Amino acid sequence: MYILDSIVDSLRLVREKRPLIHHMTNYVSMNDCANVTLGLGASPVMAEDSSEAGEMVAYAAALVINIGMLNPRKLEAMLIAGQQAAHKGIPIIFDPVGVGATTLRREAAHRIITELPVTVIRGNQAEIKALLGLSRSHHGVDCLATEEDNREIARRLSEKLACVVAITGRTDVVAAGRRICRIHNGHPLLAGITGTGCMTGSLIACCCSVANDPFCGAVAGLAVMGIAGELAEQSLAAAEGPGTFRVRLLDAIAALQPETLLQLIKLS
Amino acid sequence: MYILDSIVDSLRLVREKRPLIHHMTNYVSMNDCANVTLGLGASPVMAEDSSEAGEMVAYAAALVINIGMLNPRKLEAMLIAGQQAAHKGIPIIFDPVGVGATTLRREAAHRIITELPVTVIRGNQAEIKALLGLSRSHHGVDCLATEEDNREIARRLSEKLACVVAITGRTDVVAAGRRICRIHNGHPLLAGITGTGCMTGSLIACCCSVANDPFCGAVAGLAVMGIAGELAEQSLAAAEGPGTFRVRLLDAIAALQPETLLQLIKLS
Amino acid sequence: MYILDSIVDSLRLVREKRPLIHHMTNYVSMNDCANVTLGLGASPVMAEDSSEAGEMVAYAAALVINIGMLNPRKLEAMLIAGQQAAHKGIPIIFDPVGVGATTLRREAAHRIITELPVTVIRGNQAEIKALLGLSRSHHGVDCLATEEDNREIARRLSEKLACVVAITGRTDVVAAGRRICRIHNGHPLLAGITGTGCMTGSLIACCCSVANDPFCGAVAGLAVMGIAGELAEQSLAAAEGPGTFRVRLLDAIAALQPETLLQLIKLS
Repeated sequence: MYILDSIVDSLRLVREKRPLIHHMTNYVSMNDCANVTLGLGASPVMAEDSSEAGEMVAYAAALVINIGMLNPRKLEAMLIAGQQAAHKGIPIIFDPVGVGATTLRREAAHRIITELPVTVIRGNQAEIKALLGLSRSHHGVDCLATEEDNREIARRLSEKLACVVAITGRTDVVAAGRRICRIHNGHPLLAGITGTGCMTGSLIACCCSVANDPFCGAVAGLAVMGIAGELAEQSLAAAEGPGTFRVRLLDAIAALQPETLLQLIKLS
Repeated sequence: MYILDSIVDSLRLVREKRPLIHHMTNYVSMNDCANVTLGLGASPVMAEDSSEAGEMVAYAAALVINIGMLNPRKLEAMLIAGQQAAHKGIPIIFDPVGVGATTLRREAAHRIITELPVTVIRGNQAEIKALLGLSRSHHGVDCLATEEDNREIARRLSEKLACVVAITGRTDVVAAGRRICRIHNGHPLLAGITGTGCMTGSLIACCCSVANDPFCGAVAGLAVMGIAGELAEQSLAAAEGPGTFRVRLLDAIAALQPETLLQLIKLS
Repeated sequence: MYILDSIVDSLRLVREKRPLIHHMTNYVSMNDCANVTLGLGASPVMAEDSSEAGEMVAYAAALVINIGMLNPRKLEAMLIAGQQAAHKGIPIIFDPVGVGATTLRREAAHRIITELPVTVIRGNQAEIKALLGLSRSHHGVDCLATEEDNREIARRLSEKLACVVAITGRTDVVAAGRRICRIHNGHPLLAGITGTGCMTGSLIACCCSVANDPFCGAVAGLAVMGIAGELAEQSLAAAEGPGTFRVRLLDAIAALQPETLLQLIKLS
């Protein structure tokens, strides 16, 4: 199966090439994002001032833009870095954290999706629906609410913006237009620690930086996080909870072998 | 005993309602604050730009204001968010980190306690004494130095500002005017990792967001941290220290059951 | 051997005096830096706004300046704090993170090394070479590339700036002019988690804050990190990786006894 080969290739290539992943992200989960990037075998860098964010793109193989804890200065720097990334042809991974919540985030997201050729958008259902609402002609987004509807929501935004859209939830959905894949991996504990969404963005960026096909890169990143979450949870002893889970999640990402991934991955 | 019922209720209600706790806090312990908030069963959010901090309050059930790593822009955003919180009637938890150390923090704290109807203030003895000094007529704060004096210091500030005051230390003290409670839980290792004070502020915010009585909410937050610290320490093997303690602390917060809390809590 | 006595003394004095270490550093590894500072027995503080960064130096026994995630406002605050530190006579530890990568960092580093009497500079080979290039008359830095050359690179920058220079890598090198020491401790896993370079800067600052001789302080900080890395790695079970390593690293720093250090330290 082509997609499985591609996922395994991504894993191998990240470890071989150690791509530099430039993050412009929030301060809550920044350390975790750096550690999962290193854990998968890539190399993280963070620069967010407008005077250097674009320049740093020169060394990068992918750019992560995450609007958690945004401010107007950082947004300008993100747009500069994004334009550099577009010019250089490296993938841009966009995480529209809490986009529905405030005007600043809505306007920021609108500028990012209209001014930058975003490669992959990753969000939860509410965030992706909010983005779909931001793009002009949305037909009946409000009535789409169940997890079943995520395929439809992802497809619509993907077609609207001509990019890959990933919705994370109990089942993850990735759409590149009508090409759709669902990933049935993961564990509820992933929602019990902060920043797993942001970390998934980092993993997608790592995989997309080496994959020819961002659709496969997105599926690979989601599969790695989901499977690592399962393995981390299985390793927990009786008294252990989210603190230990967070530690083991990084262990599992770093240890993940292609054979294990192929054994555990559940796509449909 | 009324206060014990109220503490147990807080724990249950946080897990049931999953309140959103808006944090405006320092970057050192921000990730830990988000994780303990999730661990207790609530949901954290962080927004600190003046253009969105107030708007985010609309979704929140409590607001944490922590002046570690402050700057003038963030202070303005804190005041805006605080006014929104006051307008909405949700509790404001204020952590005056290092308030005695610099003019910026002194002036910030002065504005926060005069412009906002703060619900609970949590600090160590030095911080609470510094706040008492900031409010005009302080009689002989300088001679109050022992842990015994904490009751008097907490009571005075509480009466001056008409809010609940919590002083953390070997013994924690909570005062709502002449109503005073001491919590004799905790472990010295809690001072051996960074940010446990800030995390306690998050726990107090979680409990106050669901409690009718902020005095009980503050006691509940302090008791959870103290007891989780004891349980985390007891779980350590010989070679384990602050790194493992930090992991187990989060495990213990997430696993804490009402029965365990009632068994271990030591109030006077 | 004088240097070993001095290292053991540093360890003892940090735990005895609990010096306050003021950090102006990046947000990726800030929490880890605070925790290793506490782990070694010192006390961390972070303040980065120009209105308070200098004032905070009054309480500090050492100042860490780290230019990861820099912006022009923070640079100004670093220079103010650095001048206060120079005035007060406390050691300034400079970590030129990614100095070769962007104009902002190059210019910032240039101002820091020309305007402040830096006590110790810690970087990897590329960063120290970039700094050597920034100081005017560099003769053939480009041809120095192997780890063997690190002695020469460190010596040159040390003589140029009249400060101690530490290059971290498989073997660490510390130079104070022609006085050179190599530390052969450490483990590759230290490069598998984010921020170990920054944390080493914190450890060097702790040791220099109590040592008479910054050369010995730098060697002490590097030795503590290297040995703690070895001990942390040895404690790992089969399935454990960087997540657990990071936890055990802090445990090992906190538990490190002078006898263990003397037993494991490898200098030449």
